[in-house]
Amino acid sequence: MSDLNGKIVLGADQYGKAESRIVRIYRDSPRHEIKDVNVSTCLRGDFAAAYTDGDQSNVLPTDSQKQTAYAFAKQYGIPTIEEYGIRLAEHFVDEIEPVHLARIEIDEYLWERASADGAPHDHTWIRKGQEIRTATITVEGAGADRKVWVVGGLKDLIVLKSTGSEFAGFLVDDYTVLEPTNDRMMATSIVAKWRFVGTDADWDDVYSQVKQLLIEQFAVVQSRALQQTLFRMGEAVLEHFGSIAEIRLSAPNRHHFVHNLAPFGLDNPNEVFNVSDRPYGLIQAVVTRDDAPPAGPAWEQQFGWLA
Amino acid sequence: MSDLNGKIVLGADQYGKAESRIVRIYRDSPRHEIKDVNVSTCLRGDFAAAYTDGDQSNVLPTDSQKQTAYAFAKQYGIPTIEEYGIRLAEHFVDEIEPVHLARIEIDEYLWERASADGAPHDHTWIRKGQEIRTATITVEGAGADRKVWVVGGLKDLIVLKSTGSEFAGFLVDDYTVLEPTNDRMMATSIVAKWRFVGTDADWDDVYSQVKQLLIEQFAVVQSRALQQTLFRMGEAVLEHFGSIAEIRLSAPNRHHFVHNLAPFGLDNPNEVFNVSDRPYGLIQAVVTRDDAPPAGPAWEQQFGWLA
Amino acid sequence: MSDLNGKIVLGADQYGKAESRIVRIYRDSPRHEIKDVNVSTCLRGDFAAAYTDGDQSNVLPTDSQKQTAYAFAKQYGIPTIEEYGIRLAEHFVDEIEPVHLARIEIDEYLWERASADGAPHDHTWIRKGQEIRTATITVEGAGADRKVWVVGGLKDLIVLKSTGSEFAGFLVDDYTVLEPTNDRMMATSIVAKWRFVGTDADWDDVYSQVKQLLIEQFAVVQSRALQQTLFRMGEAVLEHFGSIAEIRLSAPNRHHFVHNLAPFGLDNPNEVFNVSDRPYGLIQAVVTRDDAPPAGPAWEQQFGWLA
Amino acid sequence: MSDLNGKIVLGADQYGKAESRIVRIYRDSPRHEIKDVNVSTCLRGDFAAAYTDGDQSNVLPTDSQKQTAYAFAKQYGIPTIEEYGIRLAEHFVDEIEPVHLARIEIDEYLWERASADGAPHDHTWIRKGQEIRTATITVEGAGADRKVWVVGGLKDLIVLKSTGSEFAGFLVDDYTVLEPTNDRMMATSIVAKWRFVGTDADWDDVYSQVKQLLIEQFAVVQSRALQQTLFRMGEAVLEHFGSIAEIRLSAPNRHHFVHNLAPFGLDNPNEVFNVSDRPYGLIQAVVTRDDAPPAGPAWEQQFGWLA
Repeated sequence: MSDLNGKIVLGADQYGKAESRIVRIYRDSPRHEIKDVNVSTCLRGDFAAAYTDGDQSNVLPTDSQKQTAYAFAKQYGIPTIEEYGIRLAEHFVDEIEPVHLARIEIDEYLWERASADGAPHDHTWIRKGQEIRTATITVEGAGADRKVWVVGGLKDLIVLKSTGSEFAGFLVDDYTVLEPTNDRMMATSIVAKWRFVGTDADWDDVYSQVKQLLIEQFAVVQSRALQQTLFRMGEAVLEHFGSIAEIRLSAPNRHHFVHNLAPFGLDNPNEVFNVSDRPYGLIQAVVTRDDAPPAGPAWEQQFGWLA
Repeated sequence: MSDLNGKIVLGADQYGKAESRIVRIYRDSPRHEIKDVNVSTCLRGDFAAAYTDGDQSNVLPTDSQKQTAYAFAKQYGIPTIEEYGIRLAEHFVDEIEPVHLARIEIDEYLWERASADGAPHDHTWIRKGQEIRTATITVEGAGADRKVWVVGGLKDLIVLKSTGSEFAGFLVDDYTVLEPTNDRMMATSIVAKWRFVGTDADWDDVYSQVKQLLIEQFAVVQSRALQQTLFRMGEAVLEHFGSIAEIRLSAPNRHHFVHNLAPFGLDNPNEVFNVSDRPYGLIQAVVTRDDAPPAGPAWEQQFGWLA
Repeated sequence: MSDLNGKIVLGADQYGKAESRIVRIYRDSPRHEIKDVNVSTCLRGDFAAAYTDGDQSNVLPTDSQKQTAYAFAKQYGIPTIEEYGIRLAEHFVDEIEPVHLARIEIDEYLWERASADGAPHDHTWIRKGQEIRTATITVEGAGADRKVWVVGGLKDLIVLKSTGSEFAGFLVDDYTVLEPTNDRMMATSIVAKWRFVGTDADWDDVYSQVKQLLIEQFAVVQSRALQQTLFRMGEAVLEHFGSIAEIRLSAPNRHHFVHNLAPFGLDNPNEVFNVSDRPYGLIQAVVTRDDAPPAGPAWEQQFGWLA
Repeated sequence: MSDLNGKIVLGADQYGKAESRIVRIYRDSPRHEIKDVNVSTCLRGDFAAAYTDGDQSNVLPTDSQKQTAYAFAKQYGIPTIEEYGIRLAEHFVDEIEPVHLARIEIDEYLWERASADGAPHDHTWIRKGQEIRTATITVEGAGADRKVWVVGGLKDLIVLKSTGSEFAGFLVDDYTVLEPTNDRMMATSIVAKWRFVGTDADWDDVYSQVKQLLIEQFAVVQSRALQQTLFRMGEAVLEHFGSIAEIRLSAPNRHHFVHNLAPFGLDNPNEVFNVSDRPYGLIQAVVTRDDAPPAGPAWEQQFGWLA
């Protein structure tokens, strides 16, 4: 193909402050409460002159975005990351004139209350460490054109089942050496993100139920492949929550290989495994509904469109 | 908004083998050569039954994809990651019937030849460690409908300038406490990905020239903001290479704060800095042409669409 | 000082296989059990010729060490990491003639049983993710000279208290700008390692009790500094367990800074914090007894003596 | 063994500020210079009361230690990390009364000057990214009892040779399945630390020569095992520098396995390798002299004695 010589122009652009690490303590009574979040803000709008001419007059500093995130944590608290994110995103679109779209991405680190002397302690916690809860809120437009998308989620939820998983009957080509199996270990680290229809769910309740539904499906499905397990997970979530339009799942297949002990005169009927780091299968699926409203920019993650 | 009850269906899906770590040595003469890559393959096509019914008959195992990557490294070598990736992607689309689209993502770790006794050594290298070279190849369709997109790139290229950078004249809101400055340090870790028009560039030559153009623009532009610097980088690349349709840039602003030494009776005119880890500004831009051909699925990265 | 010209000799040396990732499943009944460990073996002994002359005749390959770790996981299981480590270490000293000392370091990843349909599931688990349990077993000599040291431990146990911590009355020098405080947040990620007197404790019971004692002291001590908290932690463990000779504690002070909201007209009475990544205070202490038996090589960690 | 009931006492202790990230720019002429370091300070001395009684009167805050590191970077600059570290350590021992010993650990990130328009640029650099230079300075005692130990070093220097390495003639036990080989790939990531006899070497010159000696030996030695290669490296350094008393080397054996291509009808004579992450052999050695002065506390690293 011959070379191009068209006019050079700015395409899409966005900017923001990534990874503000905020801890909010509620200390209105002796029994304190904690919220621990990592907040990234990202703005789109009328910023072309900053790129093409170095003109900052429309550019809200990323430091100001950060300060807003801290100030809002005080003024309005962080009841849930979804509510906090909606408020922040609406603020940027409503109050900062050049902003057309704001996206807030939040990771929440979960804590459990420590116990001491046999009772829950008032002001001490242990980091739970299991999964990280996530939310992405996207707000676009003002007034009657206002649109809000809320995506809840979790990541780093590591699950494993020691039986109840198969992989057989697959397509075989010239490079296939893998043997089919009817009993293998299956393990993965689940990333799940679910898009809400509206903006007023019982966020905490949905979160804990979705987590349990994902785990339960992983456990009870006799899996013929990780693909099938993912679909069943998504299906269970959508069946349960009419307030969720779609769910996206990404799952690395953390391979556990049966270690060959035959040279040492030992049988190994799926008892001793070698856990492999790389490579790993990576399975990704969207489970949705035929009446799901448009996703708009809901999935255009800050780190996703150009990672 | 009221709950949904539409039929639950599979939306988009893809799967593959991520992060096969392959080293290819050329040892046809005493002076060996090395290529060191991390290869991820990803397939889309007629795989719905695997998700909905657990039917694997159309599913090429991810292990087979891995074996193919190793075998091709032997059969055809890895002259450049772009050529190797095109060959792999075309293979999956052409030879595996259910595959409609294949995407190959490759990271290349660069090595320099060691010297010993004052001369370049035949078979010893030191990992360069500077930036990582990347490529993403997407192949869709067969025969006359065949389309191929090649995206070259780099990441982890860390650059810093100790002057020649400003940030002033920005928008001020109620949460702005940042002071404008006409002389600040600027540092970033560049991620750049450029989409080629065709499939037959001099890949190595383009790579080394693009890298130098990015560095040079970072150095010589009197920067009024990181946004401006990114645009100038992209512009320089497109001006130089008619074979490149667009370039996407992502740059964290690695903040270096002037450390306050006044309490110790010391002046600090931009000499001693505290390097901050988080938070950081994150600036992203696409620089393109008004005659750029459609990007199609070229930017739908494996880890991007649901990270 | 003038240059040296003494004879060049081999000093200390050791070698082994690091980070064998082993999962052991017990499937004797439908209700499976899991142990998930990362095992490193390290040998010292009569290996000088391998270094000075390239003579491998005394060198047991690191691959053989790994195979032994896998085989023992099948033959003897992993009842606790302490028992498994003792058995492995004794094997190397007893069966491999040139070995004088063997050290086994183990990280254990903890899992909790998933629940499904309201009941604990037979063969599915969720990674707990909280702390990592550790053990280091050192065995030296044979027959009557046999000595065994067992060190239990944990790491990555992240705890936080939102009040009940002070830092005041400290030494002030010309570089001190820190203000004293009588109410601050305190957070850390505890590393603790405790050396047992003997080799036959109830390992699991000690582990869970030590973890609770550490957490409890962190919670209940009105802390005048992290140093004091560490000592109280260690003291509580030694008071409770006569079977523990000493405990070593390392704790980064994960600084949470009260974010200044005054520019926005907001008070911030220890409610909104900025979590800092670096730098961090690092406090380390040994709490021991005046009748503790010698530690010998118990603390010469594989990655510690030359990290 | 029966339980202990001896008095509980504080054993060893130390504390400091870890990982102050300091960049120092020299801008006395238009051609700037840069030093980029990560500094950890650690103090030992008369601090027992802080642990046992919460009494801070002898405790210099870790924040003050950090401020000192920044202030010294301005006042005295960072001509080399060894000189800067000596000055800092001596300051703490001399000026802070309770301090008996100070240890400064420094990582230095290396940069290369960018070129633009065909010439080296005055104030722009690219992070080299190859190895990290390290130094550990320990100062103990005052006046006539003053002792200073300087340890230079490097880490993350990744090297690979595609031939010239063997592993055969090793000890075989019941768990040995490894086949001997006379031609294998060898790769490692070198950590090396060398202890100087005195305190006034030409630090930069020694550094660059030691690095080259290590690489050269890795290249030219026909290796019968990684153990032998390490010893030769150390020997070469000590032969060259009478100012170095000993050198310690730690090297993971980054295994590259010949990938089996036979199922695809392909021969693989050491051309295509699978790079393994874990497990890895880990070989560690000290090469010293029979007239080396005592090491004292020179090797008691901050993160080593209880990591």
